[in-house]
Amino acid sequence: MIELRVDVKDYPYSIFLGRRIFSQLAKELKKLEPTSVLIVTNTTIAPIYGEKILRVCSAVCRSEIIALPDGEQFKTWSVTSLVLDKLAEMKADRRTVVVALGGGVVGDTAGFAASIYMRGIRFIQVPTTLLAQVDSSVGGKTGVNMKAGKNMIGTFHQPAAVISDTEVLKTLPKREVSAGIAEIIKHGLLADKVYFEEVEKKIDKLYELDPSTTASIVAGSCRIKAKVVAADAKEEGERAKLNLGHTFGHAIEKMMGFGNWLHGEAIGCGCVLAAQMSKELGTLEDEDCNRVMKLIETAKLPTKVPGLPVEAFIHAMKSDKKTAGGVIRFILMDGIGNSYIKEVDENLLRKVLINGGCTQ
Amino acid sequence: MIELRVDVKDYPYSIFLGRRIFSQLAKELKKLEPTSVLIVTNTTIAPIYGEKILRVCSAVCRSEIIALPDGEQFKTWSVTSLVLDKLAEMKADRRTVVVALGGGVVGDTAGFAASIYMRGIRFIQVPTTLLAQVDSSVGGKTGVNMKAGKNMIGTFHQPAAVISDTEVLKTLPKREVSAGIAEIIKHGLLADKVYFEEVEKKIDKLYELDPSTTASIVAGSCRIKAKVVAADAKEEGERAKLNLGHTFGHAIEKMMGFGNWLHGEAIGCGCVLAAQMSKELGTLEDEDCNRVMKLIETAKLPTKVPGLPVEAFIHAMKSDKKTAGGVIRFILMDGIGNSYIKEVDENLLRKVLINGGCTQ
Repeated sequence: MIELRVDVKDYPYSIFLGRRIFSQLAKELKKLEPTSVLIVTNTTIAPIYGEKILRVCSAVCRSEIIALPDGEQFKTWSVTSLVLDKLAEMKADRRTVVVALGGGVVGDTAGFAASIYMRGIRFIQVPTTLLAQVDSSVGGKTGVNMKAGKNMIGTFHQPAAVISDTEVLKTLPKREVSAGIAEIIKHGLLADKVYFEEVEKKIDKLYELDPSTTASIVAGSCRIKAKVVAADAKEEGERAKLNLGHTFGHAIEKMMGFGNWLHGEAIGCGCVLAAQMSKELGTLEDEDCNRVMKLIETAKLPTKVPGLPVEAFIHAMKSDKKTAGGVIRFILMDGIGNSYIKEVDENLLRKVLINGGCTQ
Repeated sequence: MIELRVDVKDYPYSIFLGRRIFSQLAKELKKLEPTSVLIVTNTTIAPIYGEKILRVCSAVCRSEIIALPDGEQFKTWSVTSLVLDKLAEMKADRRTVVVALGGGVVGDTAGFAASIYMRGIRFIQVPTTLLAQVDSSVGGKTGVNMKAGKNMIGTFHQPAAVISDTEVLKTLPKREVSAGIAEIIKHGLLADKVYFEEVEKKIDKLYELDPSTTASIVAGSCRIKAKVVAADAKEEGERAKLNLGHTFGHAIEKMMGFGNWLHGEAIGCGCVLAAQMSKELGTLEDEDCNRVMKLIETAKLPTKVPGLPVEAFIHAMKSDKKTAGGVIRFILMDGIGNSYIKEVDENLLRKVLINGGCTQ
C-alpha cells in the first residue's frame, strides 16, 4: 500500500493506494471517532461492494447506506437533497462521516451534501472508477450540474481521506477505463513530460489494467494532482491548469446531454482540441500534437467533436463557469508537460473547432 | 457613519453603520469590480427599497433583482434553487456579486446561494431588520431550514461587506423590533455586562428606535459579534457561545412551525430558559435571573414556552445540529456577561422546561 499526503492548508489528508485495502477504511474511520456513517453509493456499485463496505463501517459504528441512480444526468440539486434527507432521517450529527463509494458522480454529489449538511461534516472518498481514483476523488472539489452547465453548484470541501483500491477496477467497463485514461493523459500533458512518456509506453498494459502498471500510473497522477492542489486549493491561480481540455469538454457534455458522453471521453476530445489550438499558436510542435492525438486514440477515446454546430458550441463555452465577463480562458500547452493560461481570439477558436469536427 | 472591521482569517471585511448610507453600497460594489449584480430581496422589502437599490447597483454594472416570498417558512432548499436558477439565467459568472437586501431569512438564503454558485461568489449584506443588523448579517453563517431542524443545510461564507442603514428600521413592524432586541440582550448576557446594563437603561428608547440610541446599541452588538467571530469563524470553540438561548429557541421554532414565532421571539424565550437553568446550577443569582426576565418582558418578548409537551420538546432539542451523539450542550451564564458551555442532566432540563411553560 502507498500513502500519499495532500498538503492542503488547514485540511491535509492522505490518499491510500493499493489492492484489497478496504480494511484501511476501517482504520481511517476509527481515527475520526464518528457517531454514525452514511455510505453514499450508486445502484451499479451497491450490489457489488455495498454490503462489504457496510460491514466494514458497521464494525466501527452505526452505519446506513443509500444508493443513488447511476450516471452524470443524476448529478443534480434534487439528488443531493435525497442524500440530505437521508442524513436527517438517520439523525446524522456533526460527528457523522459520509463515505462516498463510487465514481466521480457519487464523489461529487456525496461530497457536496457532506459540505453543506450542518455547514459541513467529514467525508471519505472510496473511488471505484479509474477516473475517480486518478482525478475527481483528490482535491476537494464537490458539486452538481445545472441545465446551464457542469458543476455550476458546489463547494471546496476536502475529504478526510481517500481510499483507492485498484482491485475494484477489475469490474469496470472498458469504456470507463478509457475515460479514466483521459485524465491521466491530461495530467502528463499539463505538468510532467516524463509521466506522459511513461503513459505512452505502458498504454496497452494500462488499458488491460495490469496491476503493477495501474498502481504506478494511478500513484503518478495522484502525485501530480496533490502537488497542484496543495499549492492552490481554491483555484486562485495554478490549479486552473488542471482544467486542461475541460472548457472544450464541458461544452461537449452539455451539448450532447449530460450522461451521453462520459466526462472522461469529453476530456479526451478536449485535450486534442487544446493541443490543436496550442499548435495553431505555435507553442506545440506538429509532432507533439500528433503524439497527443495518437495516445488519445490508442486509449480508445474520441478525438473528434461529433458534428456539433460551431456557434452553439462557442455559446456553450461562454456559459462555462471558467468564463468571466464573456472572456474564455484556455489552458494550453507549451510543449508536452508544460501548460499556460491564455485568452484566445474567437476566430482562432472557430477555426480549431471546425477542424476538430464542429459544423458551420 | 461608523466602520467596524471583522478580522476573520483570510476574509476580513467591514460593517458600515449609519443613516442613509446606501451610497456606501455603490462604493463597496465598485471596489469589487463585478461583472454583474443580483439583488436578492423579499416581497415585503422590494416595493419599499427595491427600486432604489437597483438604481444604486445599476450605476455600477448590469444588475437584476429577485424577490423571494417573505417568512422563515420560505428559508428552504427549494427557494435557494430559485436564486441559483436566476443567477444561471442572467449568466452570472465568478465575478458577479449578490446583494442580500432584507432580514435574516434573505441574508441566510442569498448568502447560501452565493456560497455554492460556481463554488462561491461574493456577496454583500444590506440588512433591513434590527435582528439582521445586530446579528445575522455578521459572521458568515448562511443556511436554510429542513423539516428536521433550523439551518440544517448551509455554509460558512463571509460577506464582502455589510451595509447597515439604521434609517430603514423606521418601517419595521414593532414585533420585528422586539425580535432584534432579543439578540441584543443575548450579546450582553454572553459577553458584556456593561453593554447589558446600557441596554437595560435604554430599552424604551431602543424600542422606539430613537436614532442615536439605535446607532450606539447596534454598533455595540456588532462589536461583540465581530470579536467572537474573528477569533473562531467556523465555530470550533468560543463562537458556540453566540448560540445562547438557541438550543431552546430552535426547538420552539420547529415545534411551533417555522414562521409562526419569529426567530428573535424564540431566542428571547430561550434566553429566559438559559437563565433559569443557570440559576438552577448555581451560576446565576436569583436577582440576575429576574433582571433577564424583566428585560425580555420589557422588550415585549415572550418569557414562557407556549404549553408544548416536554418530552417532544427534549426530542426536538436532541435533533438540533448543536447536538452530537445525542448529548445536548447548553450555553449558560456565569453571572451576567459571562457564559460557559455545559452538558446538562436530562432531569434538570425537564424541570426547567416544565417551570418554563412546557406541559408534562
